This record gives sequence, structure tokens and C-alpha cells, in this order.
Amino acid sequence: MGAVGERGLLARIRARVPGPPAGVTIGIGDDAAVLAPAGRTHAVVTVDSLVERIHFDRRWSSPADVGHKALAVNLSDLAAMGASPEWALLSLAMPGDWPVAEFDGVLDGLLALAAAHGVAVIGGNLARTDGPLVVNVTCGGACRPRRVLLRSGGRPGDDLYVSGTLGAAAAGLEMLQAGHDAAGADEAACVARHRRPDPRVRLGVAIGRARAARAAMDLSDGLADAVRQVAEASGTGASIDAAAVPVAPGARRWFASRGEDAVSRTLAGGEDYELLLAVPPKWRGRLRNARRHAAEPGLTRIGTLTKDRALVVRRADGEGPLPDGFEHFRRDG
Amino acid sequence: MGAVGERGLLARIRARVPGPPAGVTIGIGDDAAVLAPAGRTHAVVTVDSLVERIHFDRRWSSPADVGHKALAVNLSDLAAMGASPEWALLSLAMPGDWPVAEFDGVLDGLLALAAAHGVAVIGGNLARTDGPLVVNVTCGGACRPRRVLLRSGGRPGDDLYVSGTLGAAAAGLEMLQAGHDAAGADEAACVARHRRPDPRVRLGVAIGRARAARAAMDLSDGLADAVRQVAEASGTGASIDAAAVPVAPGARRWFASRGEDAVSRTLAGGEDYELLLAVPPKWRGRLRNARRHAAEPGLTRIGTLTKDRALVVRRADGEGPLPDGFEHFRRDG
Repeated sequence: MGAVGERGLLARIRARVPGPPAGVTIGIGDDAAVLAPAGRTHAVVTVDSLVERIHFDRRWSSPADVGHKALAVNLSDLAAMGASPEWALLSLAMPGDWPVAEFDGVLDGLLALAAAHGVAVIGGNLARTDGPLVVNVTCGGACRPRRVLLRSGGRPGDDLYVSGTLGAAAAGLEMLQAGHDAAGADEAACVARHRRPDPRVRLGVAIGRARAARAAMDLSDGLADAVRQVAEASGTGASIDAAAVPVAPGARRWFASRGEDAVSRTLAGGEDYELLLAVPPKWRGRLRNARRHAAEPGLTRIGTLTKDRALVVRRADGEGPLPDGFEHFRRDG
Repeated sequence: MGAVGERGLLARIRARVPGPPAGVTIGIGDDAAVLAPAGRTHAVVTVDSLVERIHFDRRWSSPADVGHKALAVNLSDLAAMGASPEWALLSLAMPGDWPVAEFDGVLDGLLALAAAHGVAVIGGNLARTDGPLVVNVTCGGACRPRRVLLRSGGRPGDDLYVSGTLGAAAAGLEMLQAGHDAAGADEAACVARHRRPDPRVRLGVAIGRARAARAAMDLSDGLADAVRQVAEASGTGASIDAAAVPVAPGARRWFASRGEDAVSRTLAGGEDYELLLAVPPKWRGRLRNARRHAAEPGLTRIGTLTKDRALVVRRADGEGPLPDGFEHFRRDG
């Protein structure tokens, strides 16, 4: 790495990044990047970082996994706003002895996901660190005015939906940590979800365009956290039907094998990168159309926003409070 | 820090950040921030990071210094594009035992500089690390189409100008490292330039608006590096007049006291955060007006871009090659 130097690494990036697409006036190589926004769109920007040993472990995530995930978590945030992703900036803090092949691997994973979603990598920053690798990605996109999906848009009586299945990433990480041989398809899917989350970009964009939800948030910090945040921001409570929570089959079996309640673990677990949506019952048709248009995983109704500000989980044996969400910072602290 | 948790820190940020200004539809608190661009401007985005022990040392930079500098280096990049800064995203990788008072200090320094330049902090990310503090700032701004200042715009015969005085930051860092008592005003100015660089925001914007330069770059990696980059991007060579390089008085004395050539050290030294400009001789009046309008430090003509692709420094005793620039990554590696 030292032998290659910052300029050598920059040259490696430039050689691999496609030329700037329409709308990007200046890409990599100047003091900053320049974009010509399309008429009458709003710009949506977000930033997220993955820190080695906190958010990923080199023992079971390849450099390409890390590059993929660093972009995916940002795409998930944009999807939760109903925004189409457009560009990304990559900022790395790199250990001095970091092999160039791993640098290339991070780039591979990031660029492959960027290409899949039409995202242009338009710049970034390379810094050295004497600590762990930190991969910081800033992502920008566009949405039409009044089409943005906020956490605060929910109203009492709105149904709550989640996309896909939940709990897989948390279960997959535990399988890796336990050295479990995730040989079956359902278990392998859990491990893959931890390594390479698949952000719901098409679904978020389709829902935003169709105005098919009043509020949205991604499940990066788990379902319980997302329900709490959407309800708080919307000034409502929420009631969740435990039996309806779509726990991924591999996760359900994994948690059961540990003697744990799968729904409780899924509510509290993080890194699902699915979407939580608040949708008035009369918008159900619109939501169905948007989902079909996006050709992404199904949606499951898991509860409602309530006038009563309490946050509750309904089970066969009665109601209980919504558990705390997953907090990277505290859990790992 | 652990006791406060991520949400507690987020609450501290929200309490201190002013409400979003016009143009910012959604600030801190949702999955992403939303901006309504003003009509017919281009968006300019950049990212930079400061890593503890690589870019700053807690022994002589306060948390507020670090917060200031993390934003300043980005504002300098935008200034070098002729862009008005508008918004920033703050992404921190924080050691688990980092005192909350230091977190507040970083925020103080960053928010004070943001307020001085009308920059809205619209979001960010908080992550834990078991390594050094990493302060990553993404900054966005606006410029009018065809008013952006690129590195590549220079032509043979353009005069090269730099703003302000150079070498102070490098000398100031050495004074701190040497435990030198920087008691005099000129020496104190050097130390201040290392700790809290003053980005040439008004100058860059005024020059961009007036089209008073054909190419521009900031001197984050030193004068020699900037001359090389602008000449290479413009397809020219460059000839620098050593006697004209405006070395800061404190730096001149410091380098002399070490038995070093002040101009050579200034060419190679980094972190000046002044601007290098390529200006056709006939645009001199425009440049003077822009400088006066910005009310920022003077400009000094230090050489020209040449048709011959060589990069040379002219001295009383003859010509020599331009030295290599400062490379954070390699020098610290």
C-alpha cells in the first residue's frame, strides 16, 4: 500500500470507474464533483460508514462484501425516502499495511452494486489510519417535490407494512460468529443477508412515485426501532401483530435452535435493510401496484399506527410493550 | 460516551444545529436530508476526512480545532471550484471511551465555522470504532453553469497566482512538534494556520462569479503539488519564480532557523488551504476586482503556465525541477 501511494490508488479508482453519466458534469479528479440536477427534482443526500470490527469482520466478510455493504446501507436510506440514487462519494481511512488487493476488492463490490443501480462514483477521499479500516460512503439521489417519503407522515389508522422477510441478517451474523456450517439454502440466505444486504431501491422509488405510503423508514436498526421512530415522528402509537411479523425461515429455525423467541429477536435485531411503510387502508391498491411495478419481495401487513401513543406488540397470550431496537453504538460499546 | 449512546448524541446535535434554512426541505432526523436546489445552479460535492494521529494530534489541537478544520478543508475544496458552500454531513467514527465534552467540542468548532459561511449541517452518521477518531465531512454547494473553476482550464501563457501567504501551516506544525514556544505574532500565526485553516470561500466564489480565472485548485497538498496538478490537467508546463513565492514571515524565520531553504520547504509543504489560480494576463483587472470584492488576502503572481510541458522553478542561480508535493498518505506512511 505504501509503495502504491495515494496517487497510485487514485489511478486505480479512475481506471475502473466508468466515465461520468449524463447529469454529472465533473466526476473524479478535481477538487470536487459537479452535478447538473434535472429540472424540478429535489436532491436527497445521506452518509453512512462501516468500521472494521464494529460493522464487519474480515474473518467472514470479503473486501467485496464490505464494498457492497457500504453502498447498500446508503441506498437503503435513499430508498426509504423514495429517492432514486444517482451518485456516491467514497471516503476511506486505510491501515498502512492494507493490501492493495483488498482495496481493489472493496472497489469491486462497491462498483458492482453501483452499476446495478445506475449510481455514478463521482469522487471521494483516501486517508491513512493506524486503526481499523473505515469505509465511509455519501450517496445522493433525486426525488420529485411532494413525493419524498418521511418518517413523520403517518396518521392513526394507517396500516404498517414491511417488505421481504426479517431477522435473516442478525441470524446470519450469529451463525458466522458461532462457526455454524450454514449449508442449507435458508441458512445460506441468512449469511448472505448479513454479508450483502439487498437494498429495496426499486420498491422505495416506486412507492414514492406512486405516493403509495404516507411514511417510510428502512430497518437498518431493526423493526422495533423503525416502528418506534415512525410512530414518534408521526405523533402516533403503534400496535404490532407478532404472528404477522415475516421472520425469514432460516432465522426462525436458528433462533428456535437457540431456545429464543424468533419474533422477539427479529423485532430487536438489526441490519434487515427492508422498508417499513405506513399506508392508509384506502391506498392499498396503489401500494399493490407499486410493489408489482418494482418486482421486489412481497409486503406484509404487521400492524397499525394508533391514536393512543403506546407502542405495543399483540401476541396470542396478550399485549406487551415493544422491545428496544438494535443500537449499533451501544450494543457494540 | 457509552452511557449517552447514539440517540443521546444525536439529540445533542439536534439541540445545537439551527433549523434548516431556505433550500433545505428536510434536515437532520430522517433517513436522509432533502434539498430543493435553486433554479439553474449546478451542485458541487466533496468529501474529506481527518484521522487522529495522521491529520491531527490531540496534544495540540483541541476538539473545536478538529471540528473547525474538518469543515474548513471541505470549504477550501468548494472554494477552489468557485462554488458557494451550502450544506454539510458529519460522519464520525468515535472511540468508545471518547468523552462527550470532546464530542461537543468538535461540534462547536464545526458549527461555528458553518455559521460563519452560512452552511447548514443537515445530517450525518455516528459510528463506534476501537481505533482513532475519524471525522468525515461531506460538503455541498452551488455554482452557476459555466462558472465552475476546474484544474484543467489553464492555457500556456496564463499567469499563476496564489492567495495569501504560504508555508505557515507546515511551519506551525513543526513548532508544535518541536515544543517550540510560538510566542511572537508571526509564529503564533503559523500555529493558528495549522490548527484552524481559514478557507478562501469568498475569494473562490467571487472569482468563479466574475470568471476571473481559467483554472483553480486549493493548496491542501502544497504549492508544488497544485502547480503539477493544474499543469497536468491543463496539458501545459509551468515555470515558478522562487523569489515571488509569498512565504509567511513566521515560516520564513522558522525554516531559516532550521538551516532549510524556505522556498523549497514551502513548495513541498502542505495544508496551506490557499488557492492557486491560472489567469490570462488580460483578465488581470477582473481578478483584481474579484479579490477586492472578497476582501480576502492579497494575490501574488508566482509564475506562468508554459507550452513546454516541463515543470521548473527559476532561482537567481538558475532553473531546477519542481519538487514533489506533499502527500499525506505517503509522508505519514
